[in-house]
Formats: sequence, C-alpha cells, structure tokens
Amino acid sequence: MTPPTHGYLGPAGTFTHQALLTLGDLPGEARPFPSVPAALHAVRSGEVEAVLVPIENSVEGGVSATLDALTHGEPLTITREVVIDVQFDLYVRPGTALEDVREVITHPHAAAQCRGWLDAHLPGASVTERGSTAAAAVAVADPASGFDAAICAPVAGRSQGLVAAAVGIADNPDAQTRFVLVSRPAPVPPRTGADKTTLVCFMRVDRSGALLEILEQFASRGVNLCRIESRPTRTTLGNYCFSIDAEGHLDDARIAEALMGLHRICQDVVFLGSYPRADAVLPSVAAGHADDDYAEAAAWLARLRDPAR
Amino acid sequence: MTPPTHGYLGPAGTFTHQALLTLGDLPGEARPFPSVPAALHAVRSGEVEAVLVPIENSVEGGVSATLDALTHGEPLTITREVVIDVQFDLYVRPGTALEDVREVITHPHAAAQCRGWLDAHLPGASVTERGSTAAAAVAVADPASGFDAAICAPVAGRSQGLVAAAVGIADNPDAQTRFVLVSRPAPVPPRTGADKTTLVCFMRVDRSGALLEILEQFASRGVNLCRIESRPTRTTLGNYCFSIDAEGHLDDARIAEALMGLHRICQDVVFLGSYPRADAVLPSVAAGHADDDYAEAAAWLARLRDPAR
Amino acid sequence: MTPPTHGYLGPAGTFTHQALLTLGDLPGEARPFPSVPAALHAVRSGEVEAVLVPIENSVEGGVSATLDALTHGEPLTITREVVIDVQFDLYVRPGTALEDVREVITHPHAAAQCRGWLDAHLPGASVTERGSTAAAAVAVADPASGFDAAICAPVAGRSQGLVAAAVGIADNPDAQTRFVLVSRPAPVPPRTGADKTTLVCFMRVDRSGALLEILEQFASRGVNLCRIESRPTRTTLGNYCFSIDAEGHLDDARIAEALMGLHRICQDVVFLGSYPRADAVLPSVAAGHADDDYAEAAAWLARLRDPAR
Amino acid sequence: MTPPTHGYLGPAGTFTHQALLTLGDLPGEARPFPSVPAALHAVRSGEVEAVLVPIENSVEGGVSATLDALTHGEPLTITREVVIDVQFDLYVRPGTALEDVREVITHPHAAAQCRGWLDAHLPGASVTERGSTAAAAVAVADPASGFDAAICAPVAGRSQGLVAAAVGIADNPDAQTRFVLVSRPAPVPPRTGADKTTLVCFMRVDRSGALLEILEQFASRGVNLCRIESRPTRTTLGNYCFSIDAEGHLDDARIAEALMGLHRICQDVVFLGSYPRADAVLPSVAAGHADDDYAEAAAWLARLRDPAR
Repeated sequence: MTPPTHGYLGPAGTFTHQALLTLGDLPGEARPFPSVPAALHAVRSGEVEAVLVPIENSVEGGVSATLDALTHGEPLTITREVVIDVQFDLYVRPGTALEDVREVITHPHAAAQCRGWLDAHLPGASVTERGSTAAAAVAVADPASGFDAAICAPVAGRSQGLVAAAVGIADNPDAQTRFVLVSRPAPVPPRTGADKTTLVCFMRVDRSGALLEILEQFASRGVNLCRIESRPTRTTLGNYCFSIDAEGHLDDARIAEALMGLHRICQDVVFLGSYPRADAVLPSVAAGHADDDYAEAAAWLARLRDPAR
Repeated sequence: MTPPTHGYLGPAGTFTHQALLTLGDLPGEARPFPSVPAALHAVRSGEVEAVLVPIENSVEGGVSATLDALTHGEPLTITREVVIDVQFDLYVRPGTALEDVREVITHPHAAAQCRGWLDAHLPGASVTERGSTAAAAVAVADPASGFDAAICAPVAGRSQGLVAAAVGIADNPDAQTRFVLVSRPAPVPPRTGADKTTLVCFMRVDRSGALLEILEQFASRGVNLCRIESRPTRTTLGNYCFSIDAEGHLDDARIAEALMGLHRICQDVVFLGSYPRADAVLPSVAAGHADDDYAEAAAWLARLRDPAR
Repeated sequence: MTPPTHGYLGPAGTFTHQALLTLGDLPGEARPFPSVPAALHAVRSGEVEAVLVPIENSVEGGVSATLDALTHGEPLTITREVVIDVQFDLYVRPGTALEDVREVITHPHAAAQCRGWLDAHLPGASVTERGSTAAAAVAVADPASGFDAAICAPVAGRSQGLVAAAVGIADNPDAQTRFVLVSRPAPVPPRTGADKTTLVCFMRVDRSGALLEILEQFASRGVNLCRIESRPTRTTLGNYCFSIDAEGHLDDARIAEALMGLHRICQDVVFLGSYPRADAVLPSVAAGHADDDYAEAAAWLARLRDPAR
Repeated sequence: MTPPTHGYLGPAGTFTHQALLTLGDLPGEARPFPSVPAALHAVRSGEVEAVLVPIENSVEGGVSATLDALTHGEPLTITREVVIDVQFDLYVRPGTALEDVREVITHPHAAAQCRGWLDAHLPGASVTERGSTAAAAVAVADPASGFDAAICAPVAGRSQGLVAAAVGIADNPDAQTRFVLVSRPAPVPPRTGADKTTLVCFMRVDRSGALLEILEQFASRGVNLCRIESRPTRTTLGNYCFSIDAEGHLDDARIAEALMGLHRICQDVVFLGSYPRADAVLPSVAAGHADDDYAEAAAWLARLRDPAR
C-alpha cells in the first residue's frame, strides 16, 4: 500500500479534517499531523506532497503558528484555499444531561469563542484546555477521564459515540475559518480571474513610513488587500513584517508590477502563492489597472523610444 | 487584613509575576489571576484597582487575548508599561540528568521559542503543553506526574525546589516581553516627554485604502508608530481593526490632532491610554510638529481671523 | 467732489471695467489704473480702498502679474470674486469692410485667443500688440493711426464710435475670466457656505515631495482645490511657490486646520482671503470633515483628557 | 546658398539669440522667427529642422506661449536645453546722459524685472512695451522714434551702435533663462546619466486628488521633479493640465515605469523629450530605484513564475 501523499492538521475530526473532505479530488488517504509546524515540516522534507492547515479565523484572527511557519524556513507555496463555517456543539456521553455537566474540555480557541454561552448556561462548570477539539472528544468518551462534555465539531463528537447536549453554542454564529493547501514551490495554478496572492513583506527600515510605502505600492496599482497582519520578525520588540493577501494573480500585470515594486523597496518579500479564491468573487479593477491598460502603456512607451516604428 | 488592590496574570512564578516585582511601589500583596480575561474582568468589576498583563512578545507578537480583552467591553486604561528580558531554563528535580529527560512540560509559547534547542539537545523527548510555565514547574515537582523537566523562568523552577539542567535555552537569546498595567478610566499620567499612546481604530470601510488613511493621519502630523497589529473585529473574515502604539502623549498637540482626525474618519477609536515608555527614549519630532509649532500656527490663524488684533 | 474710493485695471472699456459694472453696489466712480501693479500699489498706499483686477483666464491661465503682485509686498486681502464670459469682436470704423482689413491691433492675450479666426478669415493681415484691448479701440478710432481694426470687447468698440465687422471671433466661445476685488487686510467676509479661500505656499524644501505634503494637508481634511498654480519664487530657476484656491472659508474647521498644518510644514504661507464663490456652488464635504465632526472630535478628546467630566 | 536649417525666437540680439550662439555646433546660419508659435510652426511644417525657444525664466516663471505651443498641435520633441544668465542694461544713443532719459522702451518681461531700478533711478520716465528687447534697441537707434533708451541685452544694444548708460539693472542679479531646442519627433538622444524628461499630464478627473495621484506616480519610483507648472486646458475655468520636468531619461527604468503609470491613470500624457541637463548634475537615486534594482526585481518575478528555472 502506498503511503498517503497529503496531510492535514489532525487529528481526524478537527475542522481542518472537515475542510479537507471538501477537497474531493485529493488522492487516497490523508495523513494527520499533530501540529502546523510538523505538517509543514513534512512538506519541506518531501514526506508528503501537500498539507492543509488553518490560516485565518474570523474571530481569533490569523493563525500565528501557520503564518510564522510559512514565512520562516525553506520556501513553500499555497495552491488552494478552503473556507468553512465553524460550528461548535457541546458533546456528552449518552445519558449525560446538560444540567449535570461540571467538567468541560476543549481547545483554547473553542473555549474563547463559546465564552458567552458557557457563562450563561454552565456558569459553574470548569473548562480544561486540550490541544484540539478532537482530542477533547476522545477524552470525554472515556468516563474515567473525569470530563463530562467536549466542545467540538459534530464529526469529532459523533466519531467517539457522543451525543450533542447543545448545538451552535459559539457566541458568533457566523464564524468561519480559512485553510490553505501548501506544497513545495511549483508553477502557480493558472489564473482564474478570481484569485488571491499571499506574501510577506519585511520592511527595510522599521517605521510607520515604511508600512505606508508598502500600502502605496498596492494602492498606486489599484490592488485591493483582503488581509494584512503584522507579525514580529523574531528579533527585537517592535520589529515587524507584514503578512498580506492581495486580490489578483501573479499573472495580472498590476500584481506583477506591485510585487516588483515591493521587492525593490523592501528588505525582503516572501511570495507564498497565487491561487483561486474560495468564494470565486471577481475583483473590481479600477480604470487604468487592467492588463489591457498595461499592454497599451507598454506599446505607447515603445513608440516613444522609437518614433519611426 | 485588607484584600490585595492589584493583580497579575498568574500563577506566582510567571514572567508577569517577575515583571510585577520590578514595580516596587505597588501597595501590598498582588493577586494572581488564571487568565488575562479574568484579570481584566476583575478590574472592570472593581474587585481590584489594576492588573499587570502581557501585551507583546518579541518572538510571538501581540498577545491576542490581551489585545482583544482591552478592545472589547467596558473601557480600560493603560497607565504603565514594563519590559523584561525573557529567559527560559530547563528545570528538573534534583538528581535528574539532562540525558534522562524524556517528558518535558511547558506553556505553548515557551515550547515554540525553544524548539531549536529541543530538537538539538532532546530530540527524543515529547513535549506536553500546559497553561503556564509556572504550572509546568509545579507538575515536575511531583515525581508521580510523569514529567521529567519543565521549561520555565528561574523564579518558577526554584520556588518548586527544582534545579536547572540547562539555562538560556531560548532560540532567540534577546527575546523580550512587554507588560501593561491596566486600570479603570482615570486621568492620564502626566506627560514625561518620553511617552507612548495606545489605541484601537475600527475602519469605516473595509479596504486597504482605509488603513492608508489611518496611517496618513499619523504621518501628516509627524507621529511615529511603535507597533501596529491587525485584529479581526469578530464579525466576518477579513474585517479588521488595528491596535496601535504611537510615540507621544495625549497632551502632545500632534497626538491630540491625530486622535481627533482618526475619530473623524474612523467608525470608532478606542483610546487605551498615554503612559511613560519603559525605555524612557525621547522621540525625535520632525520640524513643524512640536507643541510650539502648533501654538504658533494657532496664533497665526487667530490673527488671520482678526487682523485688527 | 470726493475722489473715487475704488479702482480697476483700466482703461475704461476693458473686460475688468465690464466686470466692475456687475458689482452694482460699489460707491461712486471707480478709477482706472494702467497696470495691475499700479492698481495694487494704490491699495497698499491707501490711495483707494479696493481695486478689481483679473486673476485667472480659462484660456491663458493665471494672470502672472496679479498672482505675483498679491504674493510679494505688503499684505492684501481678496474680499470678492467676479466671473464673466469673455467675448471678442472685431471693431472697425464705419465704412470699413472686413475684406479691407490689413492692420489689426489688440492686446497679446486677445491675439492669442483669436489666432484661429485670424488665420482663417484675415490670413494676410498683420497683428500689432498694444497694452489693452481698450487702447487698441482708441487707436483704430484715429484713421491716421494706420490701424484698420481692433479686437476688443463691445463696450470698448462702441465707446469709440466703432462698429463690429465680426462678432464672437474667439477660438473658444466659452472663455471666461475671473476677477478679484482686493483691499488692505480686514476681517474676512462672513461665511456663506459657498466660499473660496486663496493662499500661497512657499515650500520649506524644494522638491516634489514637498508639493505632495502640501496636497496631503488638504486631502487629509477633505478639502478640494479649485486652482493650483506654480510661480517662481524669483530666486533661482526651479524654486517655486504655489498659488492655491481651496473650497471653503477660514471659519470652516477643515480649512482652519489645513491652514495651520500648512503653516507648520511650509516655509511661509500667505493668506489672501476667504470670500463668496461667484457661482455660489455649495461644496460637497466628505463624511468626517464637516464642522460638526470637528466639534464632536474635540469634545471626545476633552473627555479622554478628563474622564471624570 | 542653402536655406538655414535651424531657427530661434528673434530678432537677432535677443537672449534667445545669445543662447543659440552657445550651441556652437549648429550648421550654418540660423533663422529668426517673430514669435514662439511661428518658430514652432516652422518646425511642424518642415521649414526648418529645429528651433531654439525660451521655456522658463527664474523671475517670470514658465513661458506660457512656449508651454502651450509645445502641448497643443502636432507632436514635437525637445532634444537639448541651454541655460544662460540674463543681464539687462540700459542702452542709449552716444551722447545721451542717464539724467536725460525720459522715454524708455523694452519688452514687458524686461520692464517687470527692472521695475525697482527704474523707480529708483528714472522715477519720471515713461516705459513703452515692445515685442522684444532687440526691437526696442532698433527703435532707440532711430532718434526720430522719440525713445531715449532701451532695456536690452548687450548684444542687442551694441549691434545697433548704442552705448550702455547703466549695466546690470535687473532687480534680481542672478536671473536665468532656460531655452530648449525643439524638433519633430525623433529617437531620443542617448542617456548621459544627467538627463531631464519633459511631459504634460492631462488629468482624467479634475480635482486635487488627481494631482496627488500624478505626483505619487513619480514619488513611488523615487523620481524627483525639477519643475511643475499648471496650465489651463483651454476649456473651462479651473480645468488644468500639468507641465512637468522630471530628473532622468526615458531609458531609465524608473522614468519608463512612471511614464507608463501616468499613461494609465491620466486622460492623456504628452511626452516632449529626454535630453541632457545643461548643468550636467547627476541625480541622486534613492535605494531601490536604480536600473539594477529594476532588473533584479524582474528576474525575481520570472523565477516566481517558473520556479524550475
């Protein structure tokens, strides 16, 4: 039997696992990894071809472990993204009533996102944190664990034979998480027209003016940003790099010129990939910034350089 | 005995505790809180007057729990900051040799910051995460816990009767963490000349242009930024607010005008305080942006409005 | 008989004279001056209270003599503006046919604005330049002058007993000229809501970045510009100041703050007045830049400084 | 005898003539033209190959007639520039004493630039304006003209047999005028490293924001401007285009990209040439904006697009 060629942030039953299942065309079984760094290390070392990891959550923000592990180390490339709704339910062993729940276990992010519900419905319960919501469900399945309930995704609860004592308990019912499929550097996927480009900019000088200059490289080419996150460069306090998602593809002239402009003014630019947007929304490109405008301007310049043509 | 009037992110032995001890003038005993939200809640409810919590780490970046808990909820004010060097050591029970360490326990951030050392010196050890480095030391002190070593601060290890099997094991030896003392809204501390102002800006429209406008409000008044962090507003993916530290004090004319400008163009601005910088570094103020320049310009305008004066 | 208290760029019959007649409420007779510097000198010296001079033409641009004479020397203030349509006709002595015209006389600007018509209809005629179109009409009235026709305004031709051989001969039939009424410094006229403010900015450093900073002072307060003209500072080649008309009044908060900002970053700012727009068009003020927004922001700042209020 | 292949703004004896004589390598005799439009028309029609015309004066600013005649009509190209010091002297017929001068004649610009001297030394004299300083000298040479003195360049006075009654009478002794040699479109002269590029930008929308965008196209590529002049587009009041001199050559990558950027965002860009600077001053190019930086960025982009290379 051939080993799995793909991986994800496990264990089975996590939201990443759920997201992976929406990518129906991945070959064979996928392998769970215990952490984002471990998953990305497996790609870098060639153990697997690609892994799916969470990168951004509508409540918690960017996933620092993923942003940092993509930025530092051997080059990696994002080739796809998936966005799923996040649903948190309270799973218990059959026979446990909601009012009997004293000990809850879950992942810290899940605890944070269900804080309001817990305060309102289980004010006396204590909450223990575990490394994943799936692991929390495993713990509850064992009566000897001392835990009465797990906050987790339905797939995790059901796979352990648990039942839901409450569903949709997240404080924000519209929470979403975004995942990216990461592989070693490869030619970027073809442009679809509705694409996203992810990169990290290290500023040459450390001051607010530098971030302004970075934003102007996008603005002067009419490129909109979907996400911008500051991350420490891991040297001294106050030394930041910026993790950015921009609307458009490496093969869009405005993205190509903005990337070259950033490469010139920044200390370093880490390109992490161009890939189709999960929502397939076409960007609105302002007048003067479409590929045709770039081609027309280049033709005009050529005529200026050689009027005889 | 009167209850403590101050608190900190506990338990005793954490880096926050260490940072607290550098604030020698706080009255009486301080009370440890199990989490940042719990500590800030105690201030909001009036249980304690002020608490010390971590806000930024040179390796891990902004402390999301603190940034978010300061931003959302009843108003709070930062009145002081402390910066300390972070030192991670490996603490074991007396008699345990480094080569015998199989099970390590620590806080996830500490694990992340010592990853390189662990891979090099304890490649076969497994690492378990716990809520704080101080709690990890407590666990190791009990031989029945199954853990051989804790990554923690010296104060935590020693207080449990442990000894250092290795010191200074962080991958970045210059790592620092910054803490802030938070109270209910009160008059801001007097201007020292070397001050910092912390605020959160919610953009009126969600696009890159809005961040550019925010930065221009600072740049056009010659205000430098020390830190800028995007945080999700907790609604939909891609909806961000910006947590900012700016150089200067609410009583500096350039800061006051920038704040009013932000208040006009932003959906909301949360002011979190002006306070002395821990490093006492005086800002360099560009020509035209000092208080005297503002006063002179205001006098000039008054003369334009009434030439007879 | 009391001497006239007002003046204008003469002689009688010029477009300035025409513009003056639209200001029906000026007391008594007005005195013509031979040049813009002479007219402004008469105001500065107290000879007359105010004079009307041209400042901008839709074909020729800013009137350099006026812009420079307002900028350099004792302070002056613009209190009103007038805009009139410019009509050029060809005036001849009664009995002269269009086909007999060989020698045309007019002001250089009029010659420039009728160049196309002259080439098409009087290709063989020679054109002589004179100091004003009114003086040209005077010359044609004298058959001994050798001139057959004057390009001038109807008022000038008729007052000399001439008749029109062709009307509306300007190449651009929609040409307009704008005039300003100038007095010594006085309290600015009350705000009408549809006002204009005129000023001159001398840059501290002579580079493109400085102009960008000047424009940003307006843009960051949502102030639109109606006119911007570079003028040499009269020192070395390439040393410029900028003559600007901005939408709004000295008593609009956004104009006041922009003026103070310019005063801080510029080497010098010459304020030349706030006055009602001739077209009475109300400006569209973007969200956040109205007086109410400024007042609200100032009240917010006061609360930050004294939370007890 | 072959007709002259070059021309200039005449008549002989003008400052333009003086400037022309510094271009020692022009073939044969040069032909004077009575006006800038006439001179440029002769180039457009093929009558002459090139003409020298004034474009900018340190006291009077841009020469409107030249700026407008270059902008509107068939394309023309600037291939050289010359800068000369402007010296104004007072020339009289031999035997005339300074104190006997009653009637002075000169060009309006010369009159304006000697206003202070005339007020101080010939307060009673009347000043008549003529089309050129050289024509003024011709008039004075004829005693029957009624004129006693001409303000003109030495070459003009001497060529008419006049003598200087006073020298260096300009109010600003450092005044300079800049001239450009204009031909039909041809390949631009090779880059020297110390070059200037002249262009005219017509804004797509008529507002201050548009000028800001134009300036940002230069600033974001580190291109400095030597001159920027607003000129009316000849339609309605307040509709401007911008005449610009930028540091650099069409073959500098930063100029080429800025030009293409302007072409995309402007309604129209008229390129008027790249040519060596008269002062041969090398520009200081900020980090990231040199040709090597552009080449390096393009190579980086190519590698992103094809990682296998």
